[in-house]
Amino acid sequence: MGGTTGCYTHSQGALVLRKEIAKGIEARDGYPCDVNTLFMTDGATPCVHSALKLLIRTKYDAILTPIPQYPLYSACIELYGGTLTPYYLNEGSGWGLDCAHLKKQLQDARERGENVRALVVINPGNPTGQCLSYENQVEIVKFCREENLVLLADEVYQTNVYRSGCVFTSFKKVVRDLGDDYKTFTLFSMMSTSKGFYGECGRRGGYMEVVGTTKKLLAEIYKVLSIGLCSNTGGQINMALVMNPPREGEPSHPLYAQERDGLLGSLGRRAHKLAAALNEMDGVTCNDPEGAMYLFPRLEHPPAVWREAGKIDRSPEFLYCMELLEQEGIVCVPGKGFGQEPGTSHFRITFLPDEKDIDEVIMRLKRFNDSFRAKYAAMGDE
Amino acid sequence: MGGTTGCYTHSQGALVLRKEIAKGIEARDGYPCDVNTLFMTDGATPCVHSALKLLIRTKYDAILTPIPQYPLYSACIELYGGTLTPYYLNEGSGWGLDCAHLKKQLQDARERGENVRALVVINPGNPTGQCLSYENQVEIVKFCREENLVLLADEVYQTNVYRSGCVFTSFKKVVRDLGDDYKTFTLFSMMSTSKGFYGECGRRGGYMEVVGTTKKLLAEIYKVLSIGLCSNTGGQINMALVMNPPREGEPSHPLYAQERDGLLGSLGRRAHKLAAALNEMDGVTCNDPEGAMYLFPRLEHPPAVWREAGKIDRSPEFLYCMELLEQEGIVCVPGKGFGQEPGTSHFRITFLPDEKDIDEVIMRLKRFNDSFRAKYAAMGDE
Repeated sequence: MGGTTGCYTHSQGALVLRKEIAKGIEARDGYPCDVNTLFMTDGATPCVHSALKLLIRTKYDAILTPIPQYPLYSACIELYGGTLTPYYLNEGSGWGLDCAHLKKQLQDARERGENVRALVVINPGNPTGQCLSYENQVEIVKFCREENLVLLADEVYQTNVYRSGCVFTSFKKVVRDLGDDYKTFTLFSMMSTSKGFYGECGRRGGYMEVVGTTKKLLAEIYKVLSIGLCSNTGGQINMALVMNPPREGEPSHPLYAQERDGLLGSLGRRAHKLAAALNEMDGVTCNDPEGAMYLFPRLEHPPAVWREAGKIDRSPEFLYCMELLEQEGIVCVPGKGFGQEPGTSHFRITFLPDEKDIDEVIMRLKRFNDSFRAKYAAMGDE
Repeated sequence: MGGTTGCYTHSQGALVLRKEIAKGIEARDGYPCDVNTLFMTDGATPCVHSALKLLIRTKYDAILTPIPQYPLYSACIELYGGTLTPYYLNEGSGWGLDCAHLKKQLQDARERGENVRALVVINPGNPTGQCLSYENQVEIVKFCREENLVLLADEVYQTNVYRSGCVFTSFKKVVRDLGDDYKTFTLFSMMSTSKGFYGECGRRGGYMEVVGTTKKLLAEIYKVLSIGLCSNTGGQINMALVMNPPREGEPSHPLYAQERDGLLGSLGRRAHKLAAALNEMDGVTCNDPEGAMYLFPRLEHPPAVWREAGKIDRSPEFLYCMELLEQEGIVCVPGKGFGQEPGTSHFRITFLPDEKDIDEVIMRLKRFNDSFRAKYAAMGDE
């Protein structure tokens, strides 16, 4: 009892750790953060569950969700019996988020009788890796306010940005920059210890900051989360360390900064190298990597791939990924699970293998891609 | 990546740790345990969520739930939109579970149009502390089979048994003892690292064993749990250690056994001492402690307590607990949150304070009880 990490904490997370997180958020954004708006959870997943459970009352309650998306969102919307209203990220503009398209999808949904209650934005994107520009984020926030939507911002990849000129800005900062008119703008911002340059996924550290809402709603979220008593203390401690790392001038800062920059620099080099190599392969195109931990390249297949996949009721990239695994031992994820525009085919690949192994990965991928295409091209068009 | 506790594990928990748990279950029950039926979670709470989410489809799906109960059950049933069908534990027979009463409650529920799908049993009980007899457990299992109910067995207090002659038997063993006719009897058995003599609540270790079900249902549970990727690795390791502790003949067994017996022995002494003292206080009666970590004494109040509590729309024990906290600094929980038979008043008290502090706790409780009763008795009957 008392004073050890074996004890239950406050259901929102230990206050001393929420204070650390609040400090980190304030340093990141330049705006105050109230510890009472922070809810620490076992990874960020329970945050998404809580937010969607709160928002979805009947099957008519709908959530605007990006396609492609991390399938946690589609799974939770299904689980809680709501409706997924899709919006498509624009592959042609680097997986950009087009507000005119968003508006169109919203209007269509409303005409179908859906009660669209929230917009999900994953920034940087998973599986698509794009990092939104500040101007685009302002547009998104304004759109949500006009249309009376809650913004669910999945910001778990906030430190994973690799493209020069790209900077991650939190939606909290964007909302606060917009001034007093946006004081009651409701935003859920999700964060995790599973990504970044730390990648402590098994620790299950996570939190959400619930911005601009009422005390009553905060009390409701607290009540629901307190059913599970608290998140694990080890994960809570990790999360606090991630959000409030050593600052400049502190004794451990130089070593921390060196390790951080080393790891992120290496991830960036791997990302760019892999994307460049993919773009040189036949039938493969890949947007420039901006952030997160993935590339989501597009495949143009010989017609026989579509035909053979259709026979077993699978997507063409399922064949691609299975044969890649069998022939070269490389695991990739078929695009279908994330969603993609009809008639297109993608797969998700991480750039997490050791930097020394990336050349080998590229060699195998290319060898496989050539043989796969040759095999199916030989099977003809009909 | 790989080989560290910072990695994701299998969504059901690391296989090496599930194997340890299976060994522990086999040693406890004398029957095989299949690692594919084990689902490790962040504490036992997510098991209850998963089971109830699976069982509740509409508001007509009902769950037979003990009153008094640990309010996780009422909260989850409410959250997933089902119906709680109460059955009352019999205070007069040491919080016993009467199958004739169970049957009556089930029939009444069916007449109301409820589709009763499962029975929740907490053994040893929370907040009531009773430990079911083997014969009673056999009756319960037979009742569930006859009535086609899934049995949800909350067995998180399985090592907390303090009454001589009382022995914890798992429902898994009871079901298997009943032979082949019960091969497809469906049981969810829940366990946690938060109780016992270890009490590592903040670690969030837990699991459920899903007995006697189909591969299809196991796959469904796996799919739902995999949305959250995995439970925290530290909690998983703790859970495996709890279930497969040092065995007789192993070098660390004597020290382990000594510490275990010391802690449980002390808990038992505290439980009996506190119960005896409560029974000597005016207007307080308390069943003999059998298991778990709590006593649930009953209060007979002067009429003015009911009257004053009614004025502020609270239960009489709410006044009792609040004034106890204010005057003596002792935290107890009003019985209302656990449910109790109408017209009765109880509170839950743990016997977790250090053994050296128990006399002080008893002295304060008695001092408070006397002054509380005197104060309200002086306020008259009308």
